Amino acid sequence: MRFVTYEADGNKLFGVKLEDTVFDLYELSKEFHNGVAPDFLKDMKSFIQAGTDAFHYVTELVTKLEEDGNMNARFLRKIEDIKLLPPIENPGKVVCVGNNYMDHCREQNVDPPKQPLIFSKWPTCIIATGEEIELPEESKQVDFEAELAVVIGKGGKHISEEEAEDYIFGYTIMNDVSARDVQFGDGQWVRGKSFDTFAPLGPVLVSKDEIANPQELHIKLDVNGQVLQDSNTKHMIFSIPYIISYLSKGFTFEPGDIIATGTPHGVGVFRNPQVFLKGGDVCTIEIDQIGTLQNKVTE
Amino acid sequence: MRFVTYEADGNKLFGVKLEDTVFDLYELSKEFHNGVAPDFLKDMKSFIQAGTDAFHYVTELVTKLEEDGNMNARFLRKIEDIKLLPPIENPGKVVCVGNNYMDHCREQNVDPPKQPLIFSKWPTCIIATGEEIELPEESKQVDFEAELAVVIGKGGKHISEEEAEDYIFGYTIMNDVSARDVQFGDGQWVRGKSFDTFAPLGPVLVSKDEIANPQELHIKLDVNGQVLQDSNTKHMIFSIPYIISYLSKGFTFEPGDIIATGTPHGVGVFRNPQVFLKGGDVCTIEIDQIGTLQNKVTE
Repeated sequence: MRFVTYEADGNKLFGVKLEDTVFDLYELSKEFHNGVAPDFLKDMKSFIQAGTDAFHYVTELVTKLEEDGNMNARFLRKIEDIKLLPPIENPGKVVCVGNNYMDHCREQNVDPPKQPLIFSKWPTCIIATGEEIELPEESKQVDFEAELAVVIGKGGKHISEEEAEDYIFGYTIMNDVSARDVQFGDGQWVRGKSFDTFAPLGPVLVSKDEIANPQELHIKLDVNGQVLQDSNTKHMIFSIPYIISYLSKGFTFEPGDIIATGTPHGVGVFRNPQVFLKGGDVCTIEIDQIGTLQNKVTE
Repeated sequence: MRFVTYEADGNKLFGVKLEDTVFDLYELSKEFHNGVAPDFLKDMKSFIQAGTDAFHYVTELVTKLEEDGNMNARFLRKIEDIKLLPPIENPGKVVCVGNNYMDHCREQNVDPPKQPLIFSKWPTCIIATGEEIELPEESKQVDFEAELAVVIGKGGKHISEEEAEDYIFGYTIMNDVSARDVQFGDGQWVRGKSFDTFAPLGPVLVSKDEIANPQELHIKLDVNGQVLQDSNTKHMIFSIPYIISYLSKGFTFEPGDIIATGTPHGVGVFRNPQVFLKGGDVCTIEIDQIGTLQNKVTE
């Protein structure tokens, strides 16, 4: 399923997207269950934390909805009538993998890492599709990075590669916006990677059952229509199960944690001439089977 | 006041510590307000988020308690009868400042930073006083770092140095446990700094009104009784208001965010001979006016 967090009539809602229509899952439950709706339908993180039983509950709701065919109910909204929010707004951690595409290592003239290169972004920098990336005063070199983001479904530690998929809830898109001068000036990357608005996320969170093979997805980024990144998740150096297994040796993953899996080549700082984001630019990322994440840039 | 999060009879409770006694604030409210207690008394983060009105509410409760003198009520526990938990368990971010004491720069033979060196720890590594620091398989060089931790009370951005104190809730102690081989091997520090159990925090969270001058606190760490760090927070290169102002230029602080303000000299990796933590060691940090954070090490 394709999950969304959104705002309508001043309320923050959690829903599922079917074609161009969004359904409020809490209201949908009340409709089909005589006014009853569980609290886990109030927001994405609660839903993920509630586990597979909650997922089956929603699967049944959506099946009933499709059978019922009642597309005029009050809990239905056209996608153009709502404001999408980040599909998950309050992850416990945002784990990022650096230099995870071979061609991105080549463009930097660095050797591919022997093990995943890990850094972090603070959750306060997450914004939705349609919201604006703000250029901070501290930087003159704000860059883009198209990435497939994995959202953890089940918490755990010491997860093997073979069982890693059991711990995944689904997939979305992240733009790992980066202030290159701050990132490289500091040496430690978290400040340059975490300015407010530096993690556009969305538009939807697609549950893993809808993605046939997450290591075979076309990933593309354009700025103002000019394609600057164009690759495929099959070119990752470390696969998603490997990354989860590697990290979980020492860390506990929690439901809702996000892993940004790295960016392919074509980022602005390593182009010749360099390309950095400026006010008015529109940055668009598309990943197959997930959707389009689009953000305007503002000074 | 001295706030604690603790476990008693299998329940997680939020309370205030008066001498060697802990009072459940939720129950205390019911006692003095005819069975009524606000939800913000259920946990530390909710209480911080509730702001100054909530603080005044608790101040009144404690005043009534002291006037009443009823020290045998059922909401009272002797400190030895409870298990302390981390005073705050789920901060949105843990911001760390590196190389923030001049003598710690000297022992590394590095120039003092021209601006705060920022890195992060993931919140999943927070543990309480009395809990065990686990040595991960990935590291043979686990080190200690005594630090004063600031807890943000009021969220905000673009905070000036002059108004920074308004945004502080209070102070506690953090041991910024660090796997040196992983930290320096990765280059990016977050992995080596964030293994589970690598952020002992506590024992109490002291509200700012109880600390006369946070830049004049004796800070001391010993391992098995041998004093290895012994300094004063007046030796910080960047003051707490400066750090808050600096970071808030680009980031939104949220209530409950933690800033670990850096460690003085004496850490294990830069000693000659080097000292690393091993199974059975007991690591104890004392900071004036706050208390003692003690953790045993386990393999």
